[in-house]
Formats: sequence, structure tokens, C-alpha cells
Amino acid sequence: MTNPTEKSRAASTVSSAPEASIIPIAAHERSADTPETPDAADANERIRLFAGRLPGLRVYRPSTFGEPVPFRRIELEPTPECFGGGRQPALWLADVTGPFGEGDGKGTPRLRARPEPGAPTQLQSAREGRVTPEMAFAAERENLGREAFLEELSRCGNPRAEALYAKLLAAPAFTPEFVRDEVARRRAVIPLNVRHPEAEPMVIGRAFSTKVNANIGTSASSKSGREEYAKLREALFCGADTVMDLSTGPEIRTTREMLLRASPVPLGTVPIYEALERAGGDPANLSWEIFREVLVEQAESGVDYMTIHAGVLKAHVELTRNRLTGIVSRGGGILARWMKDHGRENFLYEHFDEILDTAARYDITLSLGDGLRSGSIADGNDAAQFAELRTLGQLNAAAGRRGVQVMIEGPGHVPLSGVVENQRLEDDWCAEAPFYTLGPLVTDIGAGYDHVTAAIGATTIGAAGTAMLCYVTPKEHLGLPDACDVREGMAVFRIAAHAADIAKGIPGALLRDAAMSAARFEFRWDDQFLLSVDPERARRFHGEQLKGRGARTAHFCSMCGPSYCPMKLARDLFD
Amino acid sequence: MTNPTEKSRAASTVSSAPEASIIPIAAHERSADTPETPDAADANERIRLFAGRLPGLRVYRPSTFGEPVPFRRIELEPTPECFGGGRQPALWLADVTGPFGEGDGKGTPRLRARPEPGAPTQLQSAREGRVTPEMAFAAERENLGREAFLEELSRCGNPRAEALYAKLLAAPAFTPEFVRDEVARRRAVIPLNVRHPEAEPMVIGRAFSTKVNANIGTSASSKSGREEYAKLREALFCGADTVMDLSTGPEIRTTREMLLRASPVPLGTVPIYEALERAGGDPANLSWEIFREVLVEQAESGVDYMTIHAGVLKAHVELTRNRLTGIVSRGGGILARWMKDHGRENFLYEHFDEILDTAARYDITLSLGDGLRSGSIADGNDAAQFAELRTLGQLNAAAGRRGVQVMIEGPGHVPLSGVVENQRLEDDWCAEAPFYTLGPLVTDIGAGYDHVTAAIGATTIGAAGTAMLCYVTPKEHLGLPDACDVREGMAVFRIAAHAADIAKGIPGALLRDAAMSAARFEFRWDDQFLLSVDPERARRFHGEQLKGRGARTAHFCSMCGPSYCPMKLARDLFD
Repeated sequence: MTNPTEKSRAASTVSSAPEASIIPIAAHERSADTPETPDAADANERIRLFAGRLPGLRVYRPSTFGEPVPFRRIELEPTPECFGGGRQPALWLADVTGPFGEGDGKGTPRLRARPEPGAPTQLQSAREGRVTPEMAFAAERENLGREAFLEELSRCGNPRAEALYAKLLAAPAFTPEFVRDEVARRRAVIPLNVRHPEAEPMVIGRAFSTKVNANIGTSASSKSGREEYAKLREALFCGADTVMDLSTGPEIRTTREMLLRASPVPLGTVPIYEALERAGGDPANLSWEIFREVLVEQAESGVDYMTIHAGVLKAHVELTRNRLTGIVSRGGGILARWMKDHGRENFLYEHFDEILDTAARYDITLSLGDGLRSGSIADGNDAAQFAELRTLGQLNAAAGRRGVQVMIEGPGHVPLSGVVENQRLEDDWCAEAPFYTLGPLVTDIGAGYDHVTAAIGATTIGAAGTAMLCYVTPKEHLGLPDACDVREGMAVFRIAAHAADIAKGIPGALLRDAAMSAARFEFRWDDQFLLSVDPERARRFHGEQLKGRGARTAHFCSMCGPSYCPMKLARDLFD
Repeated sequence: MTNPTEKSRAASTVSSAPEASIIPIAAHERSADTPETPDAADANERIRLFAGRLPGLRVYRPSTFGEPVPFRRIELEPTPECFGGGRQPALWLADVTGPFGEGDGKGTPRLRARPEPGAPTQLQSAREGRVTPEMAFAAERENLGREAFLEELSRCGNPRAEALYAKLLAAPAFTPEFVRDEVARRRAVIPLNVRHPEAEPMVIGRAFSTKVNANIGTSASSKSGREEYAKLREALFCGADTVMDLSTGPEIRTTREMLLRASPVPLGTVPIYEALERAGGDPANLSWEIFREVLVEQAESGVDYMTIHAGVLKAHVELTRNRLTGIVSRGGGILARWMKDHGRENFLYEHFDEILDTAARYDITLSLGDGLRSGSIADGNDAAQFAELRTLGQLNAAAGRRGVQVMIEGPGHVPLSGVVENQRLEDDWCAEAPFYTLGPLVTDIGAGYDHVTAAIGATTIGAAGTAMLCYVTPKEHLGLPDACDVREGMAVFRIAAHAADIAKGIPGALLRDAAMSAARFEFRWDDQFLLSVDPERARRFHGEQLKGRGARTAHFCSMCGPSYCPMKLARDLFD
């Protein structure tokens, strides 16, 4: 294997594709009928979206180990005089875009120092009471620059803002020690292969902000690696906390290597897909030997977490006999087919100890796959699904004994009334290991809108404690997503994750909502765009109707118009 | 006033605008590389979307009073032989499109016989134990043709389908007597002004399918009545159970009259908007006299339900003093302004008895408005919001004594963890009167995606008992929706309402999901499109990638491709 430094050269070659530029978004809409007041000109200077998409400027704060942790720092307009005046503190957001979000957007990933394979895993270090640089990095990231925000607030001379934020800032900060403790208790993981120096540490667990994974990858019907690179960039620009490369087809290794060398976030795979490719596409030809070969190669190349469907047992498959939609997980289908063909137990279950050896050596986080998740409301929360979950609990315990980090995969299609039950059982059977769910989708009829069907269930399960949500795009059940679908799916899932954070009281989550609502009440339109989940879209939607009428400084919007604006009507009720 | 027959002529003139045709959707995608197999040709004949949008054919079933109740009857493909074969029963869906959904899509509304103003209200009849034709109509509509479905199923010779649907069909049917009882207990309303003979009866209450309202209407920034007509049609095609005309501006009367004469669903208004227009746009000039004049005129013209902000009291407004976003309801803002200007109590509260007299005379349902709903997560579930809700409970009791039907309006921005509390308090304070909520929106940062932010909260509150959801479009907080936004907002809210129905176990709700999932498992693609919330969109998304490869008969999709399709892999596990 190449060492990290050699890898970085390869990475910089691969990652030179995207175009990026700093675009003053206000310039897009300048037209003859836009009054060029001094105010508007100022705004043109001030409001910038990096590459037309990312709000604010990249800034860093050092972790307790001195490593720079990246954020987007969004400067906000002052409170208008009619609301009492005063400056606003800048708001900080997590920034997962790595080299895509700085400089010219083509930069070489910053390589982090990593131990050689075989060093203690994050879990082993945590148990021994050792705070690692990764824990410190992840802790700082979770804090969203609250310390800087508080300091700036104190210098703003804005009593209205001080009153607003006071109680939101009272929550304790995330400390490296807290991260260590959550990892040691196996309620959180930091998926980070020692062979993936391009990636930044990310902590995933119920006590932290809810994470969102974006699936990308080639398939038999869509073979372009270049397209997957564009999807990676798109997913990061939308805030994907991890990505999974679900590629199948002949280009599987090239695609993965390209994505790994470019990705600043943890990257997951489902190794059984590559194993199936090597078995010539026929599940009957699969074997433990082929799988092991793939496992080790993927470990060496730097995959941070791997979905392992070791809980799909023969007895569980039997429970799917009367299902409406049978087995809908690709991995589950492949293994069920293999077990049927060979009349033997799942080789991933039988060889789980060997899988743990490899995982421990590279500190790969195992994402124990839900091969029997439900594919329809009728099958939701059935015996097969829960039998597998119980087995995942046993496998999780075995992994814990070996010092291997674990996430547990869950849902599929589940009625809203049955969603929380999944989290409850996962807590019981899997000892609160980070739960990582697809959706759940709360109805079967949403084709074309299944990102929403899934986000509804995801918010509820996130609020109940699920640590990471796997996004779903509008193409679910219909076809492979393109970059546009990735954007739509990610935006909706960032909303779900954020709403879950608010519901479960994650410290700091409400700061952004408060800043947004203050901007709304004070008619600071540019700030509203920058603070929203997709600034470019929000701005475009607003501009469609009030363009060229001083819209961005108007004290009303086209929804109610000037005479019906309730916030305007009620503004001086208490003067 | 004109009598209903005279009105019908006016209506047919107004409603002649829309173009409609029966389009075999398969024809759209025929291209040189599409193999014209006999199968594909058959499908071209079979799959039809009325006006390119509505699945199935319009059929009627008689109510117990003999009135024809419209449905869409969707014929499904047989189970393929490899899955055991056998015909499928046709699935029935509610059809709210009235004249837009039949013939050439331009038809004259069918006028229903109505008593003169002053006859007993639905509530008064219900209390006296009298089942009305409206109750019978509404009951039949709620049953979704389950009786016909069951009968057809028994003749299909499809054991797989019989097993699938058996338990879903075991739930009791909705009877006219049940509707009467729910209305008598004031847990349901049938909003139907005696002066609106164009409208079909619709029952709204927690024991029935969750309804969705679409807001349309002109504003100062968007004055075209023609555009509102297009939005009405769009809303109905998407399944809006009621519409609200929230017009402001000079064309307010013309627009309302046009919409009323065209609308086959109950139409609601907020009369204070028109009152404000008559007061020259200045809240200070408002008076009870102006409002009463508007109220009576709107009653005469046939408005079925009216939002009345009678619960915004001076003492409650005081509770908004320290809010982050103050008052965000237009009606609430107008009345708070008026109270401040005049130093007097809300005239709607003071004259509530007179409002009840008019409502009783025309059987107008009062939708008691939440003028103090929260405009930000920070203000969610606060003292002002709940003080108003308690007052709405008192007003609801007064209306009950007078025989007037009532809905209670609720939410706004509320964290997911606080959503169910709203329903609980409404149940307690408002005696389970139908709750009608905007969202709730579960975060403030969703601008551009607030239809989703709202649908997430709406599903949860719907599952907790809310009877009707007010849709939110992607333009919320940014501008006025166009027809495209109406479609997007409605689709997402139909999903929310349906998911709520599943969660609370509304009889028959799961039939559609079961039919959809059976179609999915059996690779009946056309059926999947027809059963989804937006058939045209589902079909288009699927066709984008597999077009011309026999996609609609393929036993896989582009998501997994042929070798990874789990349903294909697992199909014969149990043979």
C-alpha cells in the first residue's frame, strides 16, 4: 500500500475537476429596475455564497490538540434602527466540505496524521481513558463556534440579541472528555479508517447532532465515475456528514478509490456488492474467501465504515415467507439467495470474528446491516425485522468485546405509530449503539416524493434518539438520483435532522432558528437566505416575485403584501 | 339573492376555462427505440390519466339517499404468472374534482338541492337524530368503495390478493348514522353553506380520513383572478378536500364569487380581509358594522366556513410582548392593531352572538382562528398561544349552544417535541372539536422547503387526532405560490394526511398502500404510477432513466439494476 503522502498526490489529481468561484449572489439579479441605493450596493458586497452555494466564509477554530476545525461563519446585518439597532454576532455552522469549500474549491485534501493499522481503535483508547485528537476535533465541531458567538455577542451592544440568545447559550459545551465517554460507553462512534487521512473526524451518537448520510455510487444503469464525483461534491455542499459509495458494476474499485481520496467525510461501503461482482454477479458463486479478499482490500484503501449483513440468518429469512414485499435490502437478498442455494448459514455470521479482526486493525466501524428491513407498511415491525435486530444486538456485544466500533442499521417502511418502537428495541437489544436508519418511510404511496415520506419518519425516529439518518431522494423506488435529486434529498434530510436536534434538545441547535426568526421579524432578507437550509434556493424563490422592487430591503413580502403584513402591523404594539 | 338554478348558469360561464383531455400517458414516451411489443401496445390502451393527471375513471356509488358519490376507479394489471397469476380488484380513491374531473373537464357543477337559509343546521339535525342527505353522502365518500372492492376481489380468483386484503377489509364501514353521531357530538363538521349548491358534502373530524386544505387567493402583489382559477383546478387535481380563498386587494369579491361557483369542495374565507379592504386598508378604520356587512354578504354568496379571530383578546396580545416574532397571523395582526388603536376589546369577541346568528342561518361552519399562533420555534406553545386556545374553547361552547358547527385553528411553528401537546390541550379545552392546523413547522430554517418542514409536524399532529391540515407550499415565508407550488405543497400534504390515517388506523387507509406494495413486488410499474400520490410525476421520474428499454415491464429498476434487485433475488426463496 502507498503511504498517506503518496496518496495525497493521487488525490489532488483526481480532485481537480470541480469549478468553484465566489459569487456575490446579489449581482445575479441586478437589473435596470433595481434601485442602486447605497444600501443595496453594500449588500452586494456583503452577501456572498462560495461557489454560488455555501453561505459565509470558511473559518477555523483549533481543537484542544491544536488541529484546525472548519466552520462557515455567517456575518449578519445589524438590527435596523426601527427595531432598536445594534450589531449581530456572526453565526457559525458546521462545514463538511473540506477542500471543496475553500480556496478555489479544487484544493488538495489536508491529510491528517494517522497511526499505522493495528494501533488502538477509538473505542479502545476511550476505554483506557485516553482522549484522542479525533475526539477533540469532533467535540469542537459539535460546538458550532458557540464560544466565539458568545464573545462576539458581548461586543455587539444589542440588548435585543443578548436577551434572545442568553438562554440558548447556557447549555454546556461538548468537551473532548464527553466525546471520549460516549465512545467508551459505545453510545457513539468516530468512523475513521487509519488509511483515510483525507477525512475529518465526525462523532455519531445520540448525544450529538443528528447526522445525515448521502448514498452515491454507480450502478449497472449509470456507470460514470465523473457523475459520482459531482454527486459527492453536491452532497458535501448540502451538508452530508458521511457518504456511502454503493457502487456496483465493473468500475467499483476505481470509483471507490476516487471518492475516498476526495472525501473529507467518513465514507462507507457495502462490501458484499464488490464481492458479488467478483463472483460474476451470481450469489451462488459467493464465498467467505471472496468476501474476505474484498474486505481486506477495502480496509487497506481506507473505507471508514462498512455495512455487514451478518444478522440475516436462515431462521430469520424463513420469517419473511408471508411478507407482502419479501426482502428489499440488496445485501439481504444476496445473502438469502446464497443461504438458499447452499443450505448453509450466512457466512458473515459464521466468520464474524474474522471480520472483527480486520475492523479492529484499521479501526473500521461496522454498520450492522438490516438485510430484512421492511419494504412496505404491511411488513413494518414484523417478526423477521425484529428477529434480525435481536441478532444485531448479539453481534454488537461481540464487537464490543473486541474493541470494534458499531452502528446498527434500521427501518425501511414503518407506520408513524410504529416508528418509536424501533428505537426503543434498539436501545434495549443493542445497548444504545448509534442507530442508523433509512427513513423510515411512513407510507408506500409516495413515489416521486419519497424523500418527504422518509423525512417524516426520520424526524420522529431522530427525536427518539437515532444518531444518523440515511437520506432518501425523490427518485427512491423509481430510479437512480442525479445531482439535482441529491440536493433535494439532502435539503429535506438536513431539515429532518435539525428538527430532531431541536426536539431532543441538542445544545446550540436552536441558535440558528433564533437567528433566522430574528432576521425574519426584522425583515433582514439576506440573512434569512443565508441562514436557510439552501440559501440559493430561498433567495431565488423570494426574488421570483419581488425582484427589482427593493425586495431585499422591503418590510413585507409578497405573501401578505404591505398592508396585511402582521409583523409590520403589530410591530409597535408595545411602544 | 338569486336561487340555486340561476346561479348554476353563472357558474357554467365562469368555469369554462380549463382544457382537459384523456391522455394515454404511455403515448408520451413512445420513441424510435421503444420496442412496440404487443404488451406495450396493450398498456398504451389501458393506462389513462384524465387530463394528464387523474388516475382511473370517474365512477359513482349512490349514497343511502340515492345521490351519486364520485370516485376514481383504478383498474390494475393482473398478477404476473410467475407470481401465481390472477386478476386484481380495481382500487377506489376519493374524487374531489367535481366537474373538472369528468366529461371534457369543463362541465357545469351538479347543483345539489339545499334548504333555504334558516333551516336546521347539520348539527341541529344531528342532535335531533335526523340523518341528512349530506351525512349520507359524506359517509359513502369515506368508504372509498370498499364494498365494491370486496365484491370484485371475490371474483378475481387471486388467492394472493385475497390473503393480502382480507384483514384490511374487516374494518367496519362508515355509516350515515356514524357521521350523524360524530356531528352531534361536535367531533365532526360538514361545512356546507345552504347557498353553495355547487359543493359536495365533506365530513371533517378525527374519526374520518384526515383532510387537507389548500389556500389560494389574490394579493396586492398578484392580482389575477384567472391565475386563482388555475390554482383551484390544480388544488382539486391534487386532492384538496377544501380550499380557502385568502384573497386581498380590490378584486376580492369577484375572485370569491368565481371560485365559489366553480368549487365542488367546501370553500372558506377570512372575512376580516374583505372588511379591511372596505376600511381602506387601515385597521383603525375597521368597525363591527363594516365586518357585519361583509359577513352577511359572504354568507349570502355561499362561503362554507369562515375563519373568525374572536379569540384574540387584549389580555392575550399583552402576552406576546416578549415574543421573538410577535404576531404572524394576518387576522391576529389586524385585530391587535385595532384594539391598540381603539383601546377596546376585539369586536369579534364582543359581537360573537351576532356572528353565531348568521352562521346558524346559513349553516356556516366557524373556524375559530388562531390569531396568536407562533411564528418561530422560540414562541411555540407559549402563554399567548395557549391563552387564545382556551378562549376558543369558550367560544366553541357558545357556538354549540347555538347549534353552530365549529373547527378550531392551531399551530404554526412548534418543535416536534411540543406538537402532540397542542392536540391534547385542544381536546381538553375545545371538547374534541375538529382541529385544523397550519403545519406545524418543526424548524424555522426551512425556507424554500417549508412544505416539508410543515408536513413533518402535520403528520404527527394528524396522527394525534387533528382533522384537517392546512397545506404549506415551498414558497412559504418567501412569496405567493404559483400553480406549480400548489402541486408540490398538496402532494406533500396528501402524504402527511395519508400517513396520519395509517398511524391512527382509519379503516380502509391501508388498502392503497397494500395495492401499491403488491404492485411493487410484482413489478407492475404502471400500477405503481397510478397508485402513487402524483402518477404523472412518478411515471416521468421512472421513465427518465429506463425509457425505451421496456422499463414498464422490467422486473427490476435502475436503482439496483437487474443483478442486485433484492425482490428479484429473493422471489423464489420459498418455492
